[in-house]
Amino acid sequence: MSHITRDKPRLLARVRRLRGQVEALERAIDGEQACGDVLHQIAGIRGAIQGLMVEVMEGHIREHVAAPGVRGNAARAQGADELIAVLRSYLK
Amino acid sequence: MSHITRDKPRLLARVRRLRGQVEALERAIDGEQACGDVLHQIAGIRGAIQGLMVEVMEGHIREHVAAPGVRGNAARAQGADELIAVLRSYLK
Amino acid sequence: MSHITRDKPRLLARVRRLRGQVEALERAIDGEQACGDVLHQIAGIRGAIQGLMVEVMEGHIREHVAAPGVRGNAARAQGADELIAVLRSYLK
Amino acid sequence: MSHITRDKPRLLARVRRLRGQVEALERAIDGEQACGDVLHQIAGIRGAIQGLMVEVMEGHIREHVAAPGVRGNAARAQGADELIAVLRSYLK
Repeated sequence: MSHITRDKPRLLARVRRLRGQVEALERAIDGEQACGDVLHQIAGIRGAIQGLMVEVMEGHIREHVAAPGVRGNAARAQGADELIAVLRSYLK
Repeated sequence: MSHITRDKPRLLARVRRLRGQVEALERAIDGEQACGDVLHQIAGIRGAIQGLMVEVMEGHIREHVAAPGVRGNAARAQGADELIAVLRSYLK
Repeated sequence: MSHITRDKPRLLARVRRLRGQVEALERAIDGEQACGDVLHQIAGIRGAIQGLMVEVMEGHIREHVAAPGVRGNAARAQGADELIAVLRSYLK
Repeated sequence: MSHITRDKPRLLARVRRLRGQVEALERAIDGEQACGDVLHQIAGIRGAIQGLMVEVMEGHIREHVAAPGVRGNAARAQGADELIAVLRSYLK
């Protein structure tokens, strides 16, 4: 079973909370709220997405790169390549 | 007129696109899609939120700190304080 | 007097501490230390540079954009432009 | 042979370039250069440190987590734990 499947309830809870934050931001902009509040909401959304990223990366590392059950070196290397590609785009 | 008001159509378009990305991520997790795809979607959302942050900060700087129309030094200093507080939480 | 001049002792102390961290990293790599230690040192350096960035940005905002003493709207707009250019390159 | 050892010439070249950038920044502050220049130098240093981080992480992932030669599941799990700890501190 994939880690996305195994962690699905927790990941879905996180992404739905994130969606709620984005909807609140949409209402704040639509209601022309104070700019300082809008900036703080955006900073909160960014924190939430970083937390989600780390959680999915952690599942990926444990399951697709480090797990005893990965079938063979090629599969492990592919898991590593995917992770490195994301890190490159994320930390540029 | 506030920059949130003036830039509202563009900001709303951005935040709605962001909401669409978050909804797509929710479907991807719910559908147990491949983890590499999920990671790329999250990276895309983070890029979108950073872009939105810069756009709102730019409006804030121009209107609440630099604009000729800011009423007095105290208002300008307050605009600066708000911006610095967000930068501190954002770049920690 | 520029904020770089006014804050010079504190900024120099920060950048020298940063130089010390980079020199320690160089020794760690040259001495082929454990990779986990090297990663933690790099994370520390990144934290230090972010802190320095926020401090210089804060001085810039207060002095070149918000300060009562900025000479005229054009100078204020130029200070804002410089700040926004750095934010764009920093938060992309 | 560790990846720090194997990649040592390239990593040392990177960290020495980084040291040169930090020394140039120290001179810029000591010489009270224009604040816009100082901000750009800091942004460049931050880019250099992110690039170094990704390179060391990549070596870590390939050698301590994914490599066929990792001795046993416990060692692989330890490599994964170290990586995740750094990601957590880095992406908070």
